[in-house]
Amino acid sequence: MSEQSSSGVGQQLGEREREGVIDLLGAIAYGMISGFTRLAADSELARDLRLKTAVAGMAVGEFQSYELLVGHIRELGADPVEAMSPFVEAFDSYHRRTAPHGLLEGLVKAYIGDGIAYDFYREISRFVDPESQEIIAQAAADKGRTDVIVDAVRGEIRANRHLAGPLALWGRRLMGEALTQGQVVATERDALVDLILGTSHSRPGADVGEMSAIMQRLTDAHQQRMARLGLAA
Amino acid sequence: MSEQSSSGVGQQLGEREREGVIDLLGAIAYGMISGFTRLAADSELARDLRLKTAVAGMAVGEFQSYELLVGHIRELGADPVEAMSPFVEAFDSYHRRTAPHGLLEGLVKAYIGDGIAYDFYREISRFVDPESQEIIAQAAADKGRTDVIVDAVRGEIRANRHLAGPLALWGRRLMGEALTQGQVVATERDALVDLILGTSHSRPGADVGEMSAIMQRLTDAHQQRMARLGLAA
Repeated sequence: MSEQSSSGVGQQLGEREREGVIDLLGAIAYGMISGFTRLAADSELARDLRLKTAVAGMAVGEFQSYELLVGHIRELGADPVEAMSPFVEAFDSYHRRTAPHGLLEGLVKAYIGDGIAYDFYREISRFVDPESQEIIAQAAADKGRTDVIVDAVRGEIRANRHLAGPLALWGRRLMGEALTQGQVVATERDALVDLILGTSHSRPGADVGEMSAIMQRLTDAHQQRMARLGLAA
Repeated sequence: MSEQSSSGVGQQLGEREREGVIDLLGAIAYGMISGFTRLAADSELARDLRLKTAVAGMAVGEFQSYELLVGHIRELGADPVEAMSPFVEAFDSYHRRTAPHGLLEGLVKAYIGDGIAYDFYREISRFVDPESQEIIAQAAADKGRTDVIVDAVRGEIRANRHLAGPLALWGRRLMGEALTQGQVVATERDALVDLILGTSHSRPGADVGEMSAIMQRLTDAHQQRMARLGLAA
């Protein structure tokens, strides 16, 4: 119950910093709503009702994250649609370039692609104010809904060993496209770059060493997910 | 805090009645999960982010209804996947036969088709035990998420008057297909028929007069929705 908080959400942010935070929240929010529609479409392909429920549940989780982020954007006094629009093209492009052929590619994308994105969001959230960081942490939390998906993919690969090669390539492609579009998102807007580099606020930003450490952690986590699916990273 | 309730959910139901209730819950649950995937796919077509959010929000509402119904099926000691499977074909057939061409038809289907379905679920829920009735009422409650959709359809028709004729036909077609598949669902399973006719329990069932009154109410509500869209029913 601090008296500070009654002065309004986000009022402690400088204008340039606030701009960068809203950009970041807008980017993640659009990532979530576009992820929702992709996952929901994949759920339609699942004949197995347990798998359908798992994929649909992931989709719903992304919609809830979207609503959480949109709420925080509004609390910061910005318009969510405006905040999202600079990032529509990058995410749509990612989804166009990684449109899955069939359910199995869709499942791998749901687990691998969203895993990379969530890791990335959490990493980058360290450069924003504690309140926005908490919102992003909640939005990108591992909701533990992937077990059924991992089991299904492992089961398919066990049944058809020849799938392992193409799916391993698919996983690498997802990582490559996610990094490409992630860089586009991260460099799209000057205020967002300032936020990450720490030039718009008093907290430490990311120097080259830190960026390379982030990349290493993203890569490690990706390899662990690929291994969990039984695929070579 | 009655002592009765501690004896277990649904234990007051006779075996034949329980079978019919589980059928009904299974049918509605599959209706909700298949509605979720269709609405989510339509949300992908929406470029306007407010509209996208509204359609995605409807989809998420149907998933939540699905989870509520599935939870109650489990409480009644049945397997949700088994409970749903007899009704997969009827719902899939409805969606195949009313696959929208473009966003506008999808929006009309979301409002008109789901409106009919929800009315039907609520009508038929009067023939089940009070506990299951309450679950169905919650699952099929009007969640007030359709205003943005109605506005969008009205706006399109205002801008292109020649759309009104084809969309009015589309609305009639949705009603026709929903009734056809609704009859398939309602007569698919003997236990469900017994439930509706009241032959498997002590509450009053539906006689011919009651069925015709239900049809009248469904038709009236459909006409009101069509009028709200600015379409001739």
